Amino acid sequence: MQVLEQKINEIKFTWPLGFYSDAVHSGLKADKKDLGWLYSEVPAKAAGVYTTNQFQAAPIKLTKQTINHAHMLQAMIINSANANSCTGQQGELDAQTMQQLAAQQLHLEPAMVGVASTGIIGQLLPMTKVTAGISMLKLANSADIISAIQTTDQHEKKISVQVSLNDGQSIIITGFAKGSGMIHPNMATMLGFVTTDADIDGIDLQQLLSGQVDDTFNQITVDGDTSTNDMVIALANGKSNVQVVPETAEFTIFAQAFKQVLSTLAKGIASDGEGATKLVEVNVTSAESHLAAQQVAKAIVGSNLVKAAIFGADANWGRIMGAIGQTDAKIDPTNVMIMINGVAIVKQSQGIEYDHFAMQQALEQSFITIDVDVHAGTSSGQAWGCDLTYNYVKINAAYHS
Amino acid sequence: MQVLEQKINEIKFTWPLGFYSDAVHSGLKADKKDLGWLYSEVPAKAAGVYTTNQFQAAPIKLTKQTINHAHMLQAMIINSANANSCTGQQGELDAQTMQQLAAQQLHLEPAMVGVASTGIIGQLLPMTKVTAGISMLKLANSADIISAIQTTDQHEKKISVQVSLNDGQSIIITGFAKGSGMIHPNMATMLGFVTTDADIDGIDLQQLLSGQVDDTFNQITVDGDTSTNDMVIALANGKSNVQVVPETAEFTIFAQAFKQVLSTLAKGIASDGEGATKLVEVNVTSAESHLAAQQVAKAIVGSNLVKAAIFGADANWGRIMGAIGQTDAKIDPTNVMIMINGVAIVKQSQGIEYDHFAMQQALEQSFITIDVDVHAGTSSGQAWGCDLTYNYVKINAAYHS
Repeated sequence: MQVLEQKINEIKFTWPLGFYSDAVHSGLKADKKDLGWLYSEVPAKAAGVYTTNQFQAAPIKLTKQTINHAHMLQAMIINSANANSCTGQQGELDAQTMQQLAAQQLHLEPAMVGVASTGIIGQLLPMTKVTAGISMLKLANSADIISAIQTTDQHEKKISVQVSLNDGQSIIITGFAKGSGMIHPNMATMLGFVTTDADIDGIDLQQLLSGQVDDTFNQITVDGDTSTNDMVIALANGKSNVQVVPETAEFTIFAQAFKQVLSTLAKGIASDGEGATKLVEVNVTSAESHLAAQQVAKAIVGSNLVKAAIFGADANWGRIMGAIGQTDAKIDPTNVMIMINGVAIVKQSQGIEYDHFAMQQALEQSFITIDVDVHAGTSSGQAWGCDLTYNYVKINAAYHS
Repeated sequence: MQVLEQKINEIKFTWPLGFYSDAVHSGLKADKKDLGWLYSEVPAKAAGVYTTNQFQAAPIKLTKQTINHAHMLQAMIINSANANSCTGQQGELDAQTMQQLAAQQLHLEPAMVGVASTGIIGQLLPMTKVTAGISMLKLANSADIISAIQTTDQHEKKISVQVSLNDGQSIIITGFAKGSGMIHPNMATMLGFVTTDADIDGIDLQQLLSGQVDDTFNQITVDGDTSTNDMVIALANGKSNVQVVPETAEFTIFAQAFKQVLSTLAKGIASDGEGATKLVEVNVTSAESHLAAQQVAKAIVGSNLVKAAIFGADANWGRIMGAIGQTDAKIDPTNVMIMINGVAIVKQSQGIEYDHFAMQQALEQSFITIDVDVHAGTSSGQAWGCDLTYNYVKINAAYHS
């Protein structure tokens, strides 16, 4: 394992070979960039994971259909400040227009362009602004798209890793994401994009993405709400000339690096939850199955009462027990163990003595871990979230539709 | 229907014939009453519904076992400020001691006494205080138990109704409840007690209670958290000498009055949600099934984003759509209708023009209704909740364990 781990390095943010990006201010936001694209100089294998919300926004439907057509894309056009969701037939036409305009400007077939939107639900896109915005986009090497797709985000979520292989070849994987509210299982108001110059089969890319999203993006929660717009898209253009084929050492390390990218973005979103001051990581062990462990971890990190206690730096393990017990995951109700930031506070389902002052100090840090052993099996799982603060309420009560 | 409705009258709070109650300050709370009992001068038929949390507090286990033994009780002993939950074997012994002490003082078999506790999780009951407290309880006609069992509640939840039958006979049904946080499906930090002098079979009482709790207490949510302690207990002592037998007109009106009691208490809890300023009622119609309608209603009323928007008096229907779409209830995604306080804002799943000023005025009231038509069938369902406010966060971040 040591040898493999040495081959993945996080590097300064950069686009993989053959990828370009630009962003502009089109007027959707008052004064910030709000529209951008990603472009690959050659067609890229494409994979996507989409919101499970029954109302799927127009760009979700269009991109899903486009990717499913040939599992290829050469560009993504993305806007913020308007989700183009619950906008009926006109919304679908507007998403198609975005696709066509971007394709035209890039000299591509529309079927090679995906569309993503995020922002307010239920308003038609101001297409005059969008049209003018798209016409201003260039083939640049800019990273401005990362901030351009943000809504209530406070921090940029981005990462580049380099995978160096034994034969001197290397692959770059670069990801970025937005999202800070309406985040929960199964793709919430969240957009994630992963680009790589690896040469990987489209089906393999889809399997990798789907599997890893379940353990990363789908295991974060900010407020338990799932949005109509969210998607994670992966593009692999092969420009590194490094082939990545399942069941090889290269694939193993590529998958590991890919997961590092997804996991970094997912945690970045959780820690940037609306109003959040702390990132919370829950690790559940000795569960009956991986799914059961994930369910318990998600229940803890999703509990408003636990989240408010963490904001208040209070080791309120009773609320953690309450959250665990609400799931139907198999647990041993007489033998649950809980540690907060490495300090055991519950053994055999009962509170034990601990250093209250040290615990409070620990809970005032910005990274909180909760480890839970449910004594029901051998599987483990994780989830990430944030504390529930006055600012969450402020942001969401004041954000007027 | 008119004739039947005239027979149920809400009356000034009173105990039904043969019921007594008292409460004292035992020292569990700093300076308020915190311990009380309910007593029936004859054995009463008893029914109970209990939390579904996998961690069931000691008093839950004991009361369930006691009631299941013969479906009879003659008294309930109840304390607040300490939940006797996650307290292991000592906790079970303490619950039994409470049962025995109350039984002794009332000259009953312990098997005729139920025990309920609410408050902080994970601390042993200070039994010296509890013991002294129980010894001070009298056979009084006091209603102090209602406030004595409260924790963070702001208002008393209580109701008495009188059912007058055609032959001049009458029945009283009196209920009271506590609960304001950790409230969600399936019995959250919530205690509810219903007493009646009707003469009803124990099995019929259990069926009535279980069925109606699903439509009332289990359809309220404050924060999505379910506690380890909650229960609704019904006691019927027959002292009115009015027999209530299924499939008679008397049963129908009794059931209707019983539901009025449960529903009033449940709404009282929802509107008294921690930090709440508004009671929110969601009515879902044209659903595939009653369960599907309840699921959609609960999803809306449980969404932090919807709750924060209501606090901000913002008719953010996109968040309502988001909550609906998160369920797996069958809906027609192209044909959902939403009204807020009687004003239509969404038709055919798209926003329509409405008077924003009037809507905001409406949303500043303390009672908000959200009506949703999902065009998928003929069933309906309801749920109740409250807004998400700064004070919710304050109460739950500051409440130290």
